[in-house]
Amino acid sequence: MKTINLTEKLAQITTHWDPHVIGDYNDNEVMVVKFAGEFPYHLHEDTDDFFLVLSGEMTMDIDTHSHTVKAGELFIVPRGVTHRPRAVDECHVLLIEPVGTPNTGDAETASAKPRI
Amino acid sequence: MKTINLTEKLAQITTHWDPHVIGDYNDNEVMVVKFAGEFPYHLHEDTDDFFLVLSGEMTMDIDTHSHTVKAGELFIVPRGVTHRPRAVDECHVLLIEPVGTPNTGDAETASAKPRI
Repeated sequence: MKTINLTEKLAQITTHWDPHVIGDYNDNEVMVVKFAGEFPYHLHEDTDDFFLVLSGEMTMDIDTHSHTVKAGELFIVPRGVTHRPRAVDECHVLLIEPVGTPNTGDAETASAKPRI
Repeated sequence: MKTINLTEKLAQITTHWDPHVIGDYNDNEVMVVKFAGEFPYHLHEDTDDFFLVLSGEMTMDIDTHSHTVKAGELFIVPRGVTHRPRAVDECHVLLIEPVGTPNTGDAETASAKPRI
């Protein structure tokens, strides 16, 4: 049980689209991740997807709509909704997902989610 | 489905220790709250407690240990652990709790958690 500094955790990450677990909460994993460029369109059939932008700015594409999400802003994608996060410049994001949720929506292509 | 600005939500809150729901995530409520002063010691028998400090600084008292948690820092209190958040100056915090979790650990004394 200890204080977790998000900036210190992010400083350990050198890759993009590669969530790293920093804490556990009610069978969910709390993660930080760096976004840059485009992630593939995907969906999670059974779980909502939580994004809190910590620094920078991302775009969340939902069908034909694009939502800008800046530092200090939250976006929750409901289960079953196809979406694509992207970021022109590097953007830092806090994610929360139930344990075992593949970040791509597909266990075959999902990130390993190392713990830092 | 829309971008949620935490500062704009916090500007609507005029009370302390009074979480307001700003979003829903996998049967959890995402809330913002203003802390100032001391909350009572309490515990949640079945749920972990998630605190992300957005601005200012809080102290989390756990038994005889006190943890300082500043803006950009996270603290997760595991289920069953008695704790007390407090803040000398006003502090803004993001909370996530399973729907129906009483913030005091006791439904009789819990906040109503209005939605904003």
